[in-house]
Amino acid sequence: MLIEGRHFLPGAGPRALGHKALAVSLSDLAACGATPRWFTLAVALPLADEHWLKSFSEGLFALADRHGVELVGGDTTRGPLAIDITALGEVPAGQALSRAGARPGDDLWVSGELGGAALGLAHPEIRAAAKRLHEPEPRVALGKRLRGLAHAAIDVSDGLAGDLGHILERSAVGAVVRYQDIPKDASLVNLKNEELEKQCVLSGGDDYELLFTAEQGVREKIESLGGELKLRLSRIGCIEKEEKKLTILDRGNRPMAHEGGYDHFAAA
Amino acid sequence: MLIEGRHFLPGAGPRALGHKALAVSLSDLAACGATPRWFTLAVALPLADEHWLKSFSEGLFALADRHGVELVGGDTTRGPLAIDITALGEVPAGQALSRAGARPGDDLWVSGELGGAALGLAHPEIRAAAKRLHEPEPRVALGKRLRGLAHAAIDVSDGLAGDLGHILERSAVGAVVRYQDIPKDASLVNLKNEELEKQCVLSGGDDYELLFTAEQGVREKIESLGGELKLRLSRIGCIEKEEKKLTILDRGNRPMAHEGGYDHFAAA
Repeated sequence: MLIEGRHFLPGAGPRALGHKALAVSLSDLAACGATPRWFTLAVALPLADEHWLKSFSEGLFALADRHGVELVGGDTTRGPLAIDITALGEVPAGQALSRAGARPGDDLWVSGELGGAALGLAHPEIRAAAKRLHEPEPRVALGKRLRGLAHAAIDVSDGLAGDLGHILERSAVGAVVRYQDIPKDASLVNLKNEELEKQCVLSGGDDYELLFTAEQGVREKIESLGGELKLRLSRIGCIEKEEKKLTILDRGNRPMAHEGGYDHFAAA
Repeated sequence: MLIEGRHFLPGAGPRALGHKALAVSLSDLAACGATPRWFTLAVALPLADEHWLKSFSEGLFALADRHGVELVGGDTTRGPLAIDITALGEVPAGQALSRAGARPGDDLWVSGELGGAALGLAHPEIRAAAKRLHEPEPRVALGKRLRGLAHAAIDVSDGLAGDLGHILERSAVGAVVRYQDIPKDASLVNLKNEELEKQCVLSGGDDYELLFTAEQGVREKIESLGGELKLRLSRIGCIEKEEKKLTILDRGNRPMAHEGGYDHFAAA
């Protein structure tokens, strides 16, 4: 559910909003290894604005068509601008990926680059970063290919530290992450602002990359999968026994202080 | 999608709200003749209020358990209070009821009584009517039994005239309704306010009764179904050839002036 003033700014472009509203739901399906099939759409609008609806629909259906998902129901009503999409997909019985399967000794992997969306929020004038924020690309093809390969997966919607925390919690394991190995958004690296970089890479949300764990024996398979999908897949750390403990190491292998992910109900 | 200030008043009781949020979605499934199976829930809340959530959940799950439907996904976020439920159900292939199957000569039927919910909105001090408004009962059992029996069906959420209009539009037919045969809420009849009665019965929304058409040959079957389900089923008119024309006759068989149903985007 995307709410004006919370998930996007008043006056946000309707085309990108249509794209993003569906993208975030497809990203959840990707993290399950599911093939997206259908979605429902509920929209609350302050007034029936044809131009807005046309652009919103264009963004929405361009992405829907690309993934072959069909709108099968929904609702429109008047109210403060809010968009809720429920996406449904299919995955063979027993093959769905979850947050619960990480095992000590697993490698920790992430797709794409992190921090770009958070940079786009802080610096909307950096266009590449703003595009990352407003038009995320759900990693559907990757999710499907991770069936039977990954032990656990989640999409990075609330920040690396926070979303990795969900895997650690549900899998009852710990993790060590090497900060220097985390793939970082190019615009962010160019800024050379260490504090902002760390904030965006570890705690920034909205990147919608997949974070997953897999046993060391499949490293080559995963690397060749990345080549096949033309998607950077980076090994950023490993899963350890110690329950729920997350250690992030700096270049000198010293533990770094870090914040958690985004808390939807933290004091504003 | 239910929005505070639009579908319910600020400060509405959370228990009834939990019930109603699911009930309106189950009612849509009932109108398809579907067996409800699963639902997803997205809630935007201004703050994380444990007492509110507990009562809301009680109302929601009491109804969910009664119908054997399971919560399978969702989202919580901060924002102006809004609740969106997507309910999923099953119906044998080819047997789903729709708005499109009404045929000239069909009887027009409605379940229960109309106008009570609209009365509850106008007069919240009338408790029976307020209960109709806040705790509607989705006609799931009726919907399932109408498979293969009804030609077209819809639930009365936006008012009889408006929702019947959807059937006429989609079925490319007209209808004649006898006002005196429409079953009316008892509290409404007791008030003896003709203008209010007409307004609530023809244009009031939120009753969530089923309106359906069926051929004349199955009258006895439908009457005995009503007895079996202990649910009043009333024959209130018939379907005619003339496209999209809705005539409502008063006691003297004179056409009555009437308004349409609720328009979500009419000027406030």
